[in-house]
Amino acid sequence: MLSRRALNGLAEIASGSRVLTAREDLLTYAGDATPLHRHPPAAVVIPRDAEEVARIVRLANEEGFALVPRGAGSGLSGGAIPIPDSVVLLFPTWNRILEIDEANLTAWVEPGVVTGQLHAAAEAVGLFYPPDPGSMNVCTIGGNVAENAGGLRGLKYGSTKNYVQGLDVVLPTGEGVRLGGKAIKDVAGYNLVDLMVGSEGTLGVFTRILLRLVPKPETVRTMLALYDSVEAAGESVAAIIAGKIVPATLELLDQATIRAVEAFAGLGLPTDLGALLLIEVDGRRHEVEQDAFEIVRLSRIHGARDVRLAASPEEADDLRAARRIAFSALARGGPTVILEDATVPRSAVPEMLRRIQAAGQRHGVTIATFGHAGDGNLHPTCLTDERDPAALARAEAAFEEIFAAALALGGTITGEHGVGLAKRRFLPAQVGDPAVRLMRQIKAVLDPNQVLNPGKIFEPGPRCEHPPLGHRVHERAGRAR
Amino acid sequence: MLSRRALNGLAEIASGSRVLTAREDLLTYAGDATPLHRHPPAAVVIPRDAEEVARIVRLANEEGFALVPRGAGSGLSGGAIPIPDSVVLLFPTWNRILEIDEANLTAWVEPGVVTGQLHAAAEAVGLFYPPDPGSMNVCTIGGNVAENAGGLRGLKYGSTKNYVQGLDVVLPTGEGVRLGGKAIKDVAGYNLVDLMVGSEGTLGVFTRILLRLVPKPETVRTMLALYDSVEAAGESVAAIIAGKIVPATLELLDQATIRAVEAFAGLGLPTDLGALLLIEVDGRRHEVEQDAFEIVRLSRIHGARDVRLAASPEEADDLRAARRIAFSALARGGPTVILEDATVPRSAVPEMLRRIQAAGQRHGVTIATFGHAGDGNLHPTCLTDERDPAALARAEAAFEEIFAAALALGGTITGEHGVGLAKRRFLPAQVGDPAVRLMRQIKAVLDPNQVLNPGKIFEPGPRCEHPPLGHRVHERAGRAR
Repeated sequence: MLSRRALNGLAEIASGSRVLTAREDLLTYAGDATPLHRHPPAAVVIPRDAEEVARIVRLANEEGFALVPRGAGSGLSGGAIPIPDSVVLLFPTWNRILEIDEANLTAWVEPGVVTGQLHAAAEAVGLFYPPDPGSMNVCTIGGNVAENAGGLRGLKYGSTKNYVQGLDVVLPTGEGVRLGGKAIKDVAGYNLVDLMVGSEGTLGVFTRILLRLVPKPETVRTMLALYDSVEAAGESVAAIIAGKIVPATLELLDQATIRAVEAFAGLGLPTDLGALLLIEVDGRRHEVEQDAFEIVRLSRIHGARDVRLAASPEEADDLRAARRIAFSALARGGPTVILEDATVPRSAVPEMLRRIQAAGQRHGVTIATFGHAGDGNLHPTCLTDERDPAALARAEAAFEEIFAAALALGGTITGEHGVGLAKRRFLPAQVGDPAVRLMRQIKAVLDPNQVLNPGKIFEPGPRCEHPPLGHRVHERAGRAR
Repeated sequence: MLSRRALNGLAEIASGSRVLTAREDLLTYAGDATPLHRHPPAAVVIPRDAEEVARIVRLANEEGFALVPRGAGSGLSGGAIPIPDSVVLLFPTWNRILEIDEANLTAWVEPGVVTGQLHAAAEAVGLFYPPDPGSMNVCTIGGNVAENAGGLRGLKYGSTKNYVQGLDVVLPTGEGVRLGGKAIKDVAGYNLVDLMVGSEGTLGVFTRILLRLVPKPETVRTMLALYDSVEAAGESVAAIIAGKIVPATLELLDQATIRAVEAFAGLGLPTDLGALLLIEVDGRRHEVEQDAFEIVRLSRIHGARDVRLAASPEEADDLRAARRIAFSALARGGPTVILEDATVPRSAVPEMLRRIQAAGQRHGVTIATFGHAGDGNLHPTCLTDERDPAALARAEAAFEEIFAAALALGGTITGEHGVGLAKRRFLPAQVGDPAVRLMRQIKAVLDPNQVLNPGKIFEPGPRCEHPPLGHRVHERAGRAR
């Protein structure tokens, strides 16, 4: 329960009915796109500007409640799921692109701007914002920055962090700071911008975001290569990289995903396929033609049964269809769909696919895998039913093996979704106890009262080996866990 | 003075004469490439492996002395200059390239590898390590990572931080951690890799470094454009960017620099030139030819008196000569040369050049400017004489104005050299007190006993608003400042 003083304080700051406490509102914001986790907040608040955010954060410190900043709620690791007695911060009206600076190749945006909206605005002036998460037509830049979102163009263009050049942040203590700026190179002091990117709402609330843009590629060519086996697809990927070609997109669908797609949409893909690759190269016209030709050649050498090269934007859209609908197609296969993003070094993708299949078979669950083969970021997807505890336990056991396999192959438990709630318990196995302690210490020193999205990333437990940092921590120890 | 116990402890760890305390050795490591600052350490230690580094760091915590990790000593902000009673860590034998992984486009290297050595090794297998600091034939990867070094290819390729994918680090507490890895996308927990990059030796000692490589550009074209004024050069830069061309290199020399170069080397440049641009485009052959043609066209439209396009690698070397020798040529103009790296958004370069000239004139000092016009990273260089206190004071007053101008134009006090000792007092004006406090808190929590390169980045003063974090801090408060 929120205290009366806390609620009154919120109502005073967010006047004009911008504090929601009706049961249906609280249920609306109880979950995000992550299965298995839901919890209604105590209230939902819609701040109007950075000053209101700062006042709300200060109130949270004074009254001892937790804040959960939320973008579009499309996250897949539970980063935006409320913890008990918390207050969700919503930014529905913060959707303005404040400036596109063509001379400096930057954009200042509000955190509620939808990623696809920025794509369109940048492309209208011949510029390009590369990060393209699967949810780009609903997800927001604020959420992308909080999660360091990836996307289909990661191989060539990197993730969100490669495009965040500055941030206006309200710190967990309620102070506002501007980090970074329009100077491309800036080494004044510690790199706090990149500490904030991917901090999953635990270290600051972003109120304005300065993004780097690049010139829009002149053209793009799209190919679909069909294989009898994932091994052959993996060899093609290796051959393309060895050929010094860096496609913008290099996506893989395995057999189970292809069959689900066919059952769902009837695209005419042979259902005996072992794997397919969706490949896109972008850039200057002449270079793109050369690369596309070479990719077709290499794919055939390495066992592609068929390679289709789109001759028009419409054909390209057709070729992209299988990848685009993969998740929706799979989601029809079970009432509960667990989509993960275990990620390995590129060279380990074929071995990782084998281990994913083996884990599924061992635990008697169906796991289909698609994802970003070019950067090793795979999405093993399990169809299960959360109403059946035994089935769910089998799925969880399989994912435990899958995460262990990713780590054994030099990879990570999460390539682009974040740790959130869903993967907290796997974090120590990846980074080790000293690094977890270091992260917890950073959290504790920035957020001594644990007001910003506590309980995410780290499992409940000792926060820090040092003595508590401020008197308020004593009073509230354990509260927000 | 180091205690007897500290010295004995060091001698025990770094056995076999790897602890240097002779006066001439201490003087050898008293400074780096930064003018005005020198101080001999109490000892110099050459560790053999990561375990020895960890033991030395633990000893420093126990015995209360400070460690100053040092690369090649080519830094320009004083990051490697010893503080009183400190111990310098040297890595002369840590110069192995441990692996170049062509499938994953990565290299594991030891911190003492010279940057140019990695360039050569990567290019031998058709790969490319883009960061190219001016000192690349002497500076080391360890130092580059500590300072987040830039270089001439920053506009297209970014800085060192864009290529660090993993680090083995000995933390200030003596624990070893591996951060990051070969998976390109990794969002598991806070981004500690990027916190370490550019931390100037204050947060950890790097014992192995995993770097990202890219395919080697197929070709490069080099151009030299000569202008009557810096304004005209600035307009060309803006036109190139507006034309959606991203050169690898876009370097500017102003009139004072050109005259110094001519006086030094007699390259045959007209001495009435107002500015020159060295421009390089790299990539695929066809694209590079197109871009070079367009750059020549745009430069002429925007007032270039002459544009020379190299027809061979030898001609390209000739065109690069002026830029390459700029610093040496300037250094002949005065016994003390202060080279700074005030940096502004690209669009503010012409205005910044005017303000630099005005500051020099106002304080009666000669300031020549060259640098990376494409990314706004300028090197105003003042020729003075440190034996003349009045002249030095005038130079410092001019730089104070120059830094203020950079900040007023939305820039930074340092684009690629770091804060170190030289720019500590300007940091708060750039990032603000709350961000400085946050940085100090991070330093305090990672390094409670202030053993790693204390006194760098931050001015002596309160370290942290919180109560001290560990008992040892009490005992040693103020010691290392």
